[in-house]
Amino acid sequence: MSIDERCINTIRTLAADVVRGANSGHPGAPMGLAPMAQVLFTNFVRINPKNPHWPNRDRFVLSNGHACVLQYIILHFMGFKVSMDDLKAFRSVGSITPGHPERTHTQGIEVTTGPLGQGIANAVGLAIAEQEMAATFNKPNYPIFDNYTYVILGDGCMQEGVQSEACSLAGHLQLGKLIALYDDNHITIDGDTAVSFTEDVVKRFEAYGWHVQIVSDGDHNMQSIQQAIEKAKTVTDKPSLIKVHTTIGFGSLNQGEEKVHGAPLEPDDIRQVKEKFGFNPDEKYVVPPEVYDHYHKRAAQNAQYEEEWNQLLQKYAKEYPKEAADLNRRMTGKLPDGWEDALPRYTPQDSAVATRKLSEAVINKLSEAIPELIGGSADLTGSNNTRWKNAVDFQPPSTKLGNYGGRYIRYGVREHGMFAIMNGIAAYQGLIPFGGTFLNFLTYGWGAARLSALSALRVMYIMTHDSIGLGEDGPTHQPIETLALTRATPNMLTFRPCDGNETSGAYRCALLHSHMPSILSLTRQNLPQLEGTSIEAVCKGGYILQSDDNPDVGIVATGSEVPIAVEAASFLRKEGIKVRVISMPCTELFDEQSRDYRISVFPKGVPIVSVEALSTFGWAKYSHAQVGMTTFGASGQYPDVYKHFKITSEHVRDVAKDIIQYFKQHGNVPELFPQYAPAS
Amino acid sequence: MSIDERCINTIRTLAADVVRGANSGHPGAPMGLAPMAQVLFTNFVRINPKNPHWPNRDRFVLSNGHACVLQYIILHFMGFKVSMDDLKAFRSVGSITPGHPERTHTQGIEVTTGPLGQGIANAVGLAIAEQEMAATFNKPNYPIFDNYTYVILGDGCMQEGVQSEACSLAGHLQLGKLIALYDDNHITIDGDTAVSFTEDVVKRFEAYGWHVQIVSDGDHNMQSIQQAIEKAKTVTDKPSLIKVHTTIGFGSLNQGEEKVHGAPLEPDDIRQVKEKFGFNPDEKYVVPPEVYDHYHKRAAQNAQYEEEWNQLLQKYAKEYPKEAADLNRRMTGKLPDGWEDALPRYTPQDSAVATRKLSEAVINKLSEAIPELIGGSADLTGSNNTRWKNAVDFQPPSTKLGNYGGRYIRYGVREHGMFAIMNGIAAYQGLIPFGGTFLNFLTYGWGAARLSALSALRVMYIMTHDSIGLGEDGPTHQPIETLALTRATPNMLTFRPCDGNETSGAYRCALLHSHMPSILSLTRQNLPQLEGTSIEAVCKGGYILQSDDNPDVGIVATGSEVPIAVEAASFLRKEGIKVRVISMPCTELFDEQSRDYRISVFPKGVPIVSVEALSTFGWAKYSHAQVGMTTFGASGQYPDVYKHFKITSEHVRDVAKDIIQYFKQHGNVPELFPQYAPAS
Repeated sequence: MSIDERCINTIRTLAADVVRGANSGHPGAPMGLAPMAQVLFTNFVRINPKNPHWPNRDRFVLSNGHACVLQYIILHFMGFKVSMDDLKAFRSVGSITPGHPERTHTQGIEVTTGPLGQGIANAVGLAIAEQEMAATFNKPNYPIFDNYTYVILGDGCMQEGVQSEACSLAGHLQLGKLIALYDDNHITIDGDTAVSFTEDVVKRFEAYGWHVQIVSDGDHNMQSIQQAIEKAKTVTDKPSLIKVHTTIGFGSLNQGEEKVHGAPLEPDDIRQVKEKFGFNPDEKYVVPPEVYDHYHKRAAQNAQYEEEWNQLLQKYAKEYPKEAADLNRRMTGKLPDGWEDALPRYTPQDSAVATRKLSEAVINKLSEAIPELIGGSADLTGSNNTRWKNAVDFQPPSTKLGNYGGRYIRYGVREHGMFAIMNGIAAYQGLIPFGGTFLNFLTYGWGAARLSALSALRVMYIMTHDSIGLGEDGPTHQPIETLALTRATPNMLTFRPCDGNETSGAYRCALLHSHMPSILSLTRQNLPQLEGTSIEAVCKGGYILQSDDNPDVGIVATGSEVPIAVEAASFLRKEGIKVRVISMPCTELFDEQSRDYRISVFPKGVPIVSVEALSTFGWAKYSHAQVGMTTFGASGQYPDVYKHFKITSEHVRDVAKDIIQYFKQHGNVPELFPQYAPAS
Repeated sequence: MSIDERCINTIRTLAADVVRGANSGHPGAPMGLAPMAQVLFTNFVRINPKNPHWPNRDRFVLSNGHACVLQYIILHFMGFKVSMDDLKAFRSVGSITPGHPERTHTQGIEVTTGPLGQGIANAVGLAIAEQEMAATFNKPNYPIFDNYTYVILGDGCMQEGVQSEACSLAGHLQLGKLIALYDDNHITIDGDTAVSFTEDVVKRFEAYGWHVQIVSDGDHNMQSIQQAIEKAKTVTDKPSLIKVHTTIGFGSLNQGEEKVHGAPLEPDDIRQVKEKFGFNPDEKYVVPPEVYDHYHKRAAQNAQYEEEWNQLLQKYAKEYPKEAADLNRRMTGKLPDGWEDALPRYTPQDSAVATRKLSEAVINKLSEAIPELIGGSADLTGSNNTRWKNAVDFQPPSTKLGNYGGRYIRYGVREHGMFAIMNGIAAYQGLIPFGGTFLNFLTYGWGAARLSALSALRVMYIMTHDSIGLGEDGPTHQPIETLALTRATPNMLTFRPCDGNETSGAYRCALLHSHMPSILSLTRQNLPQLEGTSIEAVCKGGYILQSDDNPDVGIVATGSEVPIAVEAASFLRKEGIKVRVISMPCTELFDEQSRDYRISVFPKGVPIVSVEALSTFGWAKYSHAQVGMTTFGASGQYPDVYKHFKITSEHVRDVAKDIIQYFKQHGNVPELFPQYAPAS
């Protein structure tokens, strides 16, 4: 048995043991994928366990994340911080080996996968990032960035729309350093792919502009896998797909069947697998020393690659000190000095402007101040106002439409793909992606947006046309439920700024929170610059915009409804009622403030009305009565739509008077933030 | 000028006028699409303005819904209830001509489109429904159902993942009566498609198994469009794509440019368009009488087609009275007599079972009782438990895997596609679709799910593995924010049943609400059958499961957390504390109850703890303290995960004691449902 075969069989038997030990998981895919993983990791993928963050390492993405035992085993073999005990703790609370690989959780995991189709789309982002960084930093004789992005994906990923979107764009962008191995094992959870998936994948990827190869025996023929990858590396103007025919659960009595997909093999089956592959059936979790040796040698070679790169970088730093300093800054995650000074500030004398336009003003400034910003839009550039003056498109040079140093990506009408690609770009390190679409279409790509949050990636979602204020396009385009979704999501910030200062403040907070995504919810319609707003106030999440002493009532509002609240307050004052107006650009940041601060904003005994032109769902936490939407919207000019749904200063005034009256008659005003913390 | 040219030019000038009149909208697409619409509607599409609901009518879907002026104009020409005044009211509040076509809003609109990619996927559902109804009802010499589904879609739709998913499945299913015309005008909002969309669409669709044709001059050559559609009709075992090259905004000075896409033409431009096309530039909204005549003739012919069909149906009713009665019942939207008796009932003596399995038990019964149910899963059949005993797959007969009479659809790993296809099936009339995936992947297809709600379609979402109780698969698969989303959405019901009776009750309510979708949130883990639950109680949304007299505290819970609440209550009673447990399977239905009822369940003065193993967001409306999730979950066995996040009966007990204590010290317990209604 060759050392390669020995390694492959060790992966297979160990995968069976680990899944059996957890009494849960997916043994079939790791067993079938072992040969291609062996070829990839012992011949191609350059990663260094001693420095998992080496900037020019190759990126590996396991898009079919349910096969993660494979990835954990390889990391273990190589010497990453995944011990045999960690493997034994697979899928248990507190382990570093969860049921699907998580970027923030385990050393050596580049992106969080499992939700199907995400990984391959992330990989497109990683490959874009590599080209972007190469175009920015490489100099003649200094290929600082020239890594490959390798992906394994399965039939499940191949059926997901997010994959189609991202792979179509990858073909357009001619991402030659992206190499994907498609595990074509013809099995999904429902059985044979013949029941639902009979398209010609090869032809489809050729239609996308990929270079496609087929390996017909991926169970045994390592040489053909090797040759196909080598060939793929020579094709520099097309991403590569290598379709590898494999047998799921190779070695099992049930190999090639759905049974081996999502449940541990039976103990007897595992025994025969071990016998078949030359292992003692009575022993578990066995890794022969020569397997470790083989992988450690490869790890040492990878360390050598990094060492050579470090030397190159040292020379580079002498020749290009400015670029090297910028690169170093980016790698340490520090933003450029003084970037905050670039944020535009406004006074009430400035004219009324839509927050999407105010966002454009910020982008115009920050695109210069923060060179790692890389923007884009899902084909709504002119509506989202995401493109700055002098922006250059990120395009393959052959198109003459831009170049790989361009920092503006034309994502096409591909929201889900865009979000997943942004995750990949953010995961690469050294770049901060933002991308635009209408707020209502955030949910077209929520599968990826929630992974920004779970993976702690600083991705900025520039979501314009953020309410019924979108107007004529109508209810199909007017978000209602969307901000309830984003606010209910952990590790994500939702900003709905009300004017220029708050828009600048939203960008500031979003950028300062380097380990979470932000949703910037921006208007289509013009909004006045208000007295009392500031960039700094936004980081508290909510604050007193204006207040009479001992107010009779408070009005809390966000975004485009803050001016409505201000007008309602002026109406109330005319009737001798004392009012406080609270601006709440970010409920999540407000929730993080001390109780003393929160009570200072929402004082005991003051009834509160909330106003937001989206679903009222969730506002009971901050108010005693809610003005907002409980139905879908309507098509019409936005002032008519606001009137139709009674989101007007007159109505807010009336509701405020109602609740003042109610609590006068019915006793105490309920406390909004009682001392007991919501327990969880 | 031929009458066809005259009609086409009328569409073009009228479209320009209507958009200009609204001062908002999309003139370019209608102007470019006019020739293909003319061919389609005057030669092929069989629809009858006198009876827009004729069951065997052809279905037409405008997938690029922003071009809806075109659709409104055609409906107006034909004699549907769209008047010239309605056209003049385009995009205004209260009109029947909103900015994107809405199914419930305008006679003759089959499905709601605008969000890109949805329409073509709906069309796949419409074509599936036609085959299903044909297989069910057609008899030799009685082709009761043999209609075609025609679609127009644009470059935007072509880039969306939902389109890729649905079209791949359509190819697999060999839906020969689906004919799609692809408006290949090379323009999107960001400009030329060359900036982001350069794939070979023809090749891709061939890869999906479609029959593809190209019409190279769609601006002038009506004959080639005509011939292509005729040819497409002869291909009965493949869906057809006809790629038609057109010029966006044909006739405008800016034809072929992005400018004409999303904004009215300038008045001078409209004048020259009119002159060019033989109209008086000083007149607006002109429809020559011969154009009406031409369309009215076609409408009369369509009425004749329906008349022939009605005669066929009469004969059919004599020969097949049972089938005819069933068809008639379905078309009137009535469920079969006695179907509710089929719902399983349970007693506390019955064993603990996961609600996904209890759902399977319901499906086993209802699949017999309600023959119009048509189920499926996005490749998680064995996990979602959506397939009943004796189910037959909906498959093209040639595959030998099922037939078109099969009522179980293998959707593949295509959540977004599945949801949009279900919308199409529900819109066809006569079928009630349900489909399964994990609750966390509801948001993979939210773009379609929200349209179920907006379009008032009875689609049942069977969403299993509905919390951290999913366990080992970990946080990538554990929903947190998902139910906040569904509950914040208008016209949608969210059910989270706690046992067998409530699961039966959830299906009952879902089916009784014929004009809205329902989300059934179901557990992976086993749950006991509780004392006090019933099928009937579910329709109130929330109810007292058990209560001591004058309770000191209440615990409200949903689904898998109801048994936790019950256990916490027993702990509290041991300490002499009187408790009420409230089961809340559907907050939306509870909100619809009278205030008296709601207060009877949540009495004034009783502090309430809520328990739900998802985001606490939104629960402040029903409780004074929340037990639930504020972070993402974790991978591990589910009891360990629950313990880790303190969603335990012990912790609920402790929180209950805390709030009792708090309100003893701090005075009145805040009222949960004060008299003033949340105003909106």
